[in-house]
Amino acid sequence: MTIDETSGPKLPSPELHVEVTQFYARQMHRMDGGDFGGFAASFVQDSVFRPAGGGELRGPEAIERAARGAAGRFGGAQPRHWFDMMTVEEADDGTVSTSYYATVTVASADGSVLVEPTCFVRDTLVRVDGALRSRSRDIERDDLTVRALTEG
Amino acid sequence: MTIDETSGPKLPSPELHVEVTQFYARQMHRMDGGDFGGFAASFVQDSVFRPAGGGELRGPEAIERAARGAAGRFGGAQPRHWFDMMTVEEADDGTVSTSYYATVTVASADGSVLVEPTCFVRDTLVRVDGALRSRSRDIERDDLTVRALTEG
Amino acid sequence: MTIDETSGPKLPSPELHVEVTQFYARQMHRMDGGDFGGFAASFVQDSVFRPAGGGELRGPEAIERAARGAAGRFGGAQPRHWFDMMTVEEADDGTVSTSYYATVTVASADGSVLVEPTCFVRDTLVRVDGALRSRSRDIERDDLTVRALTEG
Repeated sequence: MTIDETSGPKLPSPELHVEVTQFYARQMHRMDGGDFGGFAASFVQDSVFRPAGGGELRGPEAIERAARGAAGRFGGAQPRHWFDMMTVEEADDGTVSTSYYATVTVASADGSVLVEPTCFVRDTLVRVDGALRSRSRDIERDDLTVRALTEG
Repeated sequence: MTIDETSGPKLPSPELHVEVTQFYARQMHRMDGGDFGGFAASFVQDSVFRPAGGGELRGPEAIERAARGAAGRFGGAQPRHWFDMMTVEEADDGTVSTSYYATVTVASADGSVLVEPTCFVRDTLVRVDGALRSRSRDIERDDLTVRALTEG
Repeated sequence: MTIDETSGPKLPSPELHVEVTQFYARQMHRMDGGDFGGFAASFVQDSVFRPAGGGELRGPEAIERAARGAAGRFGGAQPRHWFDMMTVEEADDGTVSTSYYATVTVASADGSVLVEPTCFVRDTLVRVDGALRSRSRDIERDDLTVRALTEG
């Protein structure tokens, strides 16, 4: 291990870091608020979303349909996405790569809260007219990874 | 949707963003540490706290009493507040508006951890002699929202 | 309470704050990814790790052995560390002190997620050739604290 690997070879600027935090906060407020169109609109036209478990969604329309469909599993309960341990790196061409932990809590009317399986997510973000947009999202769900390792 | 809506019309400065993270960290360390007076002192005199479920608490004294009372539900177990997906916006007059997800974990002596219902919170913060203080807090608890929608 | 206590006497610079977030993200990606050598290498030679429940680990080799051993409790399930409410303060000599909440989620192959007891952690970080490294970590696990208070 070199020293550079400890803290990462390139730190994001504070301005970029704040921008990324605000981007994800608003993207997830939309998703969890049931604004699937607004959520999908934060992805660029040639975006690729690779959900846990396989498959590939290309572009905002496919992402919107899938997000709306996936929310059916909540059965009217309120989901909230939680992210942590996010790395942020900007390439020379301005593309931003992030990786982070994610989970979803689901709050039911009876006061119970379900914690969904944790995930490791890798995104790339690009700028459109100055604002960040998602270009790709790759989700690895930990329970599926563990199962594959166990069965493999 | 306009492009501006994607990343938010006004990004907070990195300095403000850091200040906000430190403000909440210290406010919650006090709350969860049982320092209800210190917690309440982070609210200005003419503050308004609207807890989940209705009602309105005005000023630090009322907020301190309510926080102390609410902590009774933990029965000696250790609460910890967790926030995420926080938007931060500064108005021209310096007032800071935040919105975020919140939940409370409650750790018991037997090693079990209860996750309390998630909330969506909206705050306004103002400066007093240069330091941030809370002026308002509005809490929507997701289980109550889901119940109202179900019954409504 | 003085006003300075509300937001903390010294705010970290935005640059330092970002660096700290990236440091912990990478340190925890290593830990949770089973790279115990890489995790331990983020601690300096004369570091001291005080785990919950007592004892003291001195230096990367002891920390690596302990981290590898502690991971045995997951039985092949996938752990993820989550931190929040982090205070960051830099001393005049450049030493960085942090304090934060921490918990571990453990995702099993059957889709269930266990939330481990929450902790309050205090770290000191130092620079080695410009990059942050951990010099000390002190972990208080909330269930043990509650139990001690109950029995005490």
